[in-house]
Amino acid sequence: MFEARLVQGSLMKKFMEAIKDLVKEANWDCTGTGISLQAMDTSHVSLVSLLLRSDGFDPYRCDRNISLGINMESMAKIMKCASNDDVITIRSEDHPDNVTFVFESPNQEKVCDYEMKLMDIDSEHLGIPDTEYDAIISMPASEFQRICRDLSNIGDSVKITCNKDGVQFSAQGDTGIGKIALKQNAVIDKEDGQVSIELNDPVSLTFALRYLTFFTKATPLASTVTLSVSAKNPVAVEYRVDDIGYIRYYLAPKIEEEEEN
Amino acid sequence: MFEARLVQGSLMKKFMEAIKDLVKEANWDCTGTGISLQAMDTSHVSLVSLLLRSDGFDPYRCDRNISLGINMESMAKIMKCASNDDVITIRSEDHPDNVTFVFESPNQEKVCDYEMKLMDIDSEHLGIPDTEYDAIISMPASEFQRICRDLSNIGDSVKITCNKDGVQFSAQGDTGIGKIALKQNAVIDKEDGQVSIELNDPVSLTFALRYLTFFTKATPLASTVTLSVSAKNPVAVEYRVDDIGYIRYYLAPKIEEEEEN
Amino acid sequence: MFEARLVQGSLMKKFMEAIKDLVKEANWDCTGTGISLQAMDTSHVSLVSLLLRSDGFDPYRCDRNISLGINMESMAKIMKCASNDDVITIRSEDHPDNVTFVFESPNQEKVCDYEMKLMDIDSEHLGIPDTEYDAIISMPASEFQRICRDLSNIGDSVKITCNKDGVQFSAQGDTGIGKIALKQNAVIDKEDGQVSIELNDPVSLTFALRYLTFFTKATPLASTVTLSVSAKNPVAVEYRVDDIGYIRYYLAPKIEEEEEN
Repeated sequence: MFEARLVQGSLMKKFMEAIKDLVKEANWDCTGTGISLQAMDTSHVSLVSLLLRSDGFDPYRCDRNISLGINMESMAKIMKCASNDDVITIRSEDHPDNVTFVFESPNQEKVCDYEMKLMDIDSEHLGIPDTEYDAIISMPASEFQRICRDLSNIGDSVKITCNKDGVQFSAQGDTGIGKIALKQNAVIDKEDGQVSIELNDPVSLTFALRYLTFFTKATPLASTVTLSVSAKNPVAVEYRVDDIGYIRYYLAPKIEEEEEN
Repeated sequence: MFEARLVQGSLMKKFMEAIKDLVKEANWDCTGTGISLQAMDTSHVSLVSLLLRSDGFDPYRCDRNISLGINMESMAKIMKCASNDDVITIRSEDHPDNVTFVFESPNQEKVCDYEMKLMDIDSEHLGIPDTEYDAIISMPASEFQRICRDLSNIGDSVKITCNKDGVQFSAQGDTGIGKIALKQNAVIDKEDGQVSIELNDPVSLTFALRYLTFFTKATPLASTVTLSVSAKNPVAVEYRVDDIGYIRYYLAPKIEEEEEN
Repeated sequence: MFEARLVQGSLMKKFMEAIKDLVKEANWDCTGTGISLQAMDTSHVSLVSLLLRSDGFDPYRCDRNISLGINMESMAKIMKCASNDDVITIRSEDHPDNVTFVFESPNQEKVCDYEMKLMDIDSEHLGIPDTEYDAIISMPASEFQRICRDLSNIGDSVKITCNKDGVQFSAQGDTGIGKIALKQNAVIDKEDGQVSIELNDPVSLTFALRYLTFFTKATPLASTVTLSVSAKNPVAVEYRVDDIGYIRYYLAPKIEEEEEN
């Protein structure tokens, strides 16, 4: 039997919002240590990786490792039926055909029970090697979302340039050229903390805004986002969620020629 | 002459919102005791019945019984022109071709005057017999609206099952199966009161969510909705509005075979 | 060199919203006294005239009169990238091919820099003669917006009738006839002041609601709007913006025959 009860059920709703537009179907792998998901987006350009540690649930029980093959659109529809203050329990048998989501109101006087058919999904777990990054940029998640949204008005790609003074995001298109510069240690927003850059090597890399914008759907999950950038590897865009885990997105940089078009 | 002045004009705006998507045209029957309306929806599946008692108006004057044949879309457009704190007066002659709606701002320094052509509408007043119901369920109107909205994500129909412990709403479709259980006396929301069930006989009946969802357009009118259910009669969905009257909707249950598809 | 720094940058965002749907491209004429713009709407029916006085900027520097030929859609896209509390600087060379917009966050730790190509736009500056108006109506801008919106539900044109007692706005169409009357000195809304009418001659003139509705896009700029009406001239609809200037729209009345259709 598998059972995982999440008191702060709204987190599960937010995790769904953070992946449903990117991934159509995926396996949720449940083991003794927690629930993880790894999937390419539908156009096989970016990768999303999710971890929910078992100690974030109460209780958490997993008698046998199982893989729940889930259609994201269906699960998203069901998650929309949970209220923000509901407690959410995920439950299945050891050899499941179905998964059950239970939503309980805080006073337990309303109980919703949704049963969903599972799918067989082929997937190979990609090993993501630990990498040395040239620069690790931490910044308020809402600011990163705003920058992606603003520069999407200007062009299709964003060039991220990082040196010891700060980070610059730039885009160009028919409208013109836009450049947004954030200083190292800039306090953009008192509540969401500041910009901080851990720099090994100055970098300047270009990424498709379309995918970064998908990634920013995770903004409600965390106050801070971390961009780990290196010339030789995909950027890792990470949102850490207190007490339970993270969602990480990976996207390869565009090659330089493309950027000039 | 007919004249009815409603100090809390926003109620008239809300009554319009509660019927305009269901009914295209209808007679507003004005008599000494008040204004009433009874009409089938455009596909002749459900019935809506409205009563505004004369003592809810100040003043109310009706020299001669009249029937105002009204195009709902036109009246809804006009009602949108009233501000929420306007006083609304409805006025017509004894043999009217037109009806006039007057909207006065609280300080009477802005006066809006809308004149609308009337229509000839054939209608027979259906007698709705007083019935013994198997179960009468009272619950917060916003909770009923939420349940109809959530289960519309899952299927086309809702099965309402009621026994002495509580009431269950369930739906099924391609996504899966959803069940929402409310306990007898459950306090869903402190302000909107609790769930209470008056039970003569346990019932389990299926209704088209499409129509129930139309009915929940009346939610802003009342904090509580009452579902009067019986195996042999249409369900009556009633929103009582303090000091003036009610809006009631009637919908026949689906027959059992349909429910299995 | 031209440079104009506007501390309350949100004003520039609002000015853009007030013209972008009406005018496709226009010259921003920059001189020692300030920035002005005059343009016909795309269908050459109405005229918009904008003035931003140099003393509303700090600093303001204009070494040589220049005309910045700007595509409004592009500039609007860029202005959307400014936050409401940003300081906005407009900058160009003396013989510019480009204009630069700089948005600085209040603490200057985020700096956005947008460069836009300029266009060659033919335009003749129309002299708008000083006119004697029959009536000058001042009223809360939000109230005028509301009236235009409400009467657009009823008809295509509004007849504005003004005498010493007040002003009446009326429209008619398939739905019926709507009339909105405001008394002289009416206090519609405590914060936005009152209705006041300076009357030389009673007037009754009809205007296309489509254009008046475009003009009300300027509502966020000012609490009061002034309608200067005369039988022989276009109506001037003016929004004065404290400490910097105004936006004015001109629209010719419809001739009487049209009004009857």
